Amino acid sequence: MLGLCTPVHEYSLQEPAFDWMPETRNSPPRRRQSCKLYGNSSQFGRLETTRPQSLIPSLSLSLSLSLSLSEAMAIHESKAIEQAQSRPISTIVFIVAMKAEAAPIVDRFGLSEDTARFPEGVPWVRYHGIYKDLEVNVIWPGQDPLLGVNNVGTISAALVTYASVTELKPDLIINAGTAGGFGSKGACVGDVFLVSHIAFNHRRIPLPSFDVYGIGLRQAFSTPLLLKEVNLKVGKLSTGDSFDMSPEDEALVRAIDATLIDMEGAAVAYVADLLKVPAIFVKAVTNIVDAGNPSLEEFHANLADVSATLNQAVGRLVDKINGKRMSEL
Amino acid sequence: MLGLCTPVHEYSLQEPAFDWMPETRNSPPRRRQSCKLYGNSSQFGRLETTRPQSLIPSLSLSLSLSLSLSEAMAIHESKAIEQAQSRPISTIVFIVAMKAEAAPIVDRFGLSEDTARFPEGVPWVRYHGIYKDLEVNVIWPGQDPLLGVNNVGTISAALVTYASVTELKPDLIINAGTAGGFGSKGACVGDVFLVSHIAFNHRRIPLPSFDVYGIGLRQAFSTPLLLKEVNLKVGKLSTGDSFDMSPEDEALVRAIDATLIDMEGAAVAYVADLLKVPAIFVKAVTNIVDAGNPSLEEFHANLADVSATLNQAVGRLVDKINGKRMSEL
Repeated sequence: MLGLCTPVHEYSLQEPAFDWMPETRNSPPRRRQSCKLYGNSSQFGRLETTRPQSLIPSLSLSLSLSLSLSEAMAIHESKAIEQAQSRPISTIVFIVAMKAEAAPIVDRFGLSEDTARFPEGVPWVRYHGIYKDLEVNVIWPGQDPLLGVNNVGTISAALVTYASVTELKPDLIINAGTAGGFGSKGACVGDVFLVSHIAFNHRRIPLPSFDVYGIGLRQAFSTPLLLKEVNLKVGKLSTGDSFDMSPEDEALVRAIDATLIDMEGAAVAYVADLLKVPAIFVKAVTNIVDAGNPSLEEFHANLADVSATLNQAVGRLVDKINGKRMSEL
Repeated sequence: MLGLCTPVHEYSLQEPAFDWMPETRNSPPRRRQSCKLYGNSSQFGRLETTRPQSLIPSLSLSLSLSLSLSEAMAIHESKAIEQAQSRPISTIVFIVAMKAEAAPIVDRFGLSEDTARFPEGVPWVRYHGIYKDLEVNVIWPGQDPLLGVNNVGTISAALVTYASVTELKPDLIINAGTAGGFGSKGACVGDVFLVSHIAFNHRRIPLPSFDVYGIGLRQAFSTPLLLKEVNLKVGKLSTGDSFDMSPEDEALVRAIDATLIDMEGAAVAYVADLLKVPAIFVKAVTNIVDAGNPSLEEFHANLADVSATLNQAVGRLVDKINGKRMSEL
């Protein structure tokens, strides 16, 4: 069964809530999985059914959110989904936050730059062209005009996703980029993941239902056949507007059992869901966030190589998407 | 001199950086100002020139950002600003996050609901009508379709601001809403502030220039004449996607010497700056965040009354804006 970027909202709102450090509780220590063992394709779409057991006493975070994911996965059967299933894929939009990530993809497909589709003066850049039977668009939010840095983070990602969908009406959004990975969850530098679920880690609103809204857990558009063909790892993605993780952020990362963290994915998922466009998320690991290495140095050292690896995976994905309907992914 | 929502980007990027607890350093203790003494109109646009002295050792936050605001206030003299100054004000757009805040304003101006200006299916609501010489629009991001909660936070605020500007082409954006206030900075429940500066408190990116981008400090459109006429308090606003404040968030709140915290302002300012539309920010205090009271209870208890107070201030502002050019505010 296929879904759009489906919200997963129906948690039971009751304490006890998080326990993201089971090794400090009554359960046995979590085994550190090797990279080779983790992430076979059968895991795509599989849900974490372990119920969290208790709050972390040291945290000021007071969200009382029990993530009973197994109860929460009723997928919307809407008219929009039926249309998505039967529609031949003709237009795809990549949302890519950094130029270093976008440039290899632009080169691969021989895309041309065009800024005419966005409001005058905004720094967003559209690269586009025809590849096989597809109109391929790569949307990069550009650079801050004064600071010259890439417009990373959730706000720019949400804005360019909105503007791209309303302007280009794609059949499929692909958020491609680099990410931090948890070694304890099987991530290695250079791994490329297809994301199963996405949530925010920096939005804490401890009011009934607002807490669930803040976390914004969504399921990516499910592509089991595509996953088999390209043989990527599978994991959950947690998105925040900071490069680091505060203890409060980390609690929400662990609460969804995320393997990956980035700064855009959940915002792209939110807008894709808002506008009812299927979205998938391809993330390549630049740095291991729980290995004790300084993430920033590792990120910098690996950004170019990992972007090249991401580009190879994107090429395989697009070749497999070409000629198919959404229901055939 | 008037400016748009001007970015304040030109900090010197050097340590030492923050010192938001001067009473623990070599400077004398800060006197707790009474509500009556604080916030006269001459403070509007006045800059905090005290240089921060040192990092807070207990924080993991590693942004090395010295907020030398006095050096940073060179205002862009762009063609857009000249146009803004000479243009008669005809269309204003209120961005209001919560229905409880929007409803009194909608009633005051007798506005009608219209959802036709936004993409099909989005929950955003436009209320509009003619009041005196003005086309008044109130944009409310609506409710989450599954959870029924108001779509608060930076992403929805950014999206509706973008969609409103591109669709309605307003002369002026007014972000009106409730906020938390710092009693130590002179805020009292029921106070209404006109905001001088806005920044994010939840975006930590400890890379050169990215740190400044993350904080995103901007100056509101300067309205000294309007301020004198309506006699509101003045303060800086810090925006984050959480209702609470983590220690890391609080460091960035204190770094800009904020009197107010909310969940939308800096996102509205970012988009207004992006699209070169003047924006002002009117915030009414529902709860005191540093008084030891549970903020949530105080927020709930005061939301309706403070929204009514906000509405009165909005009425005075609009009456004074009516018939003027931007350069006359």
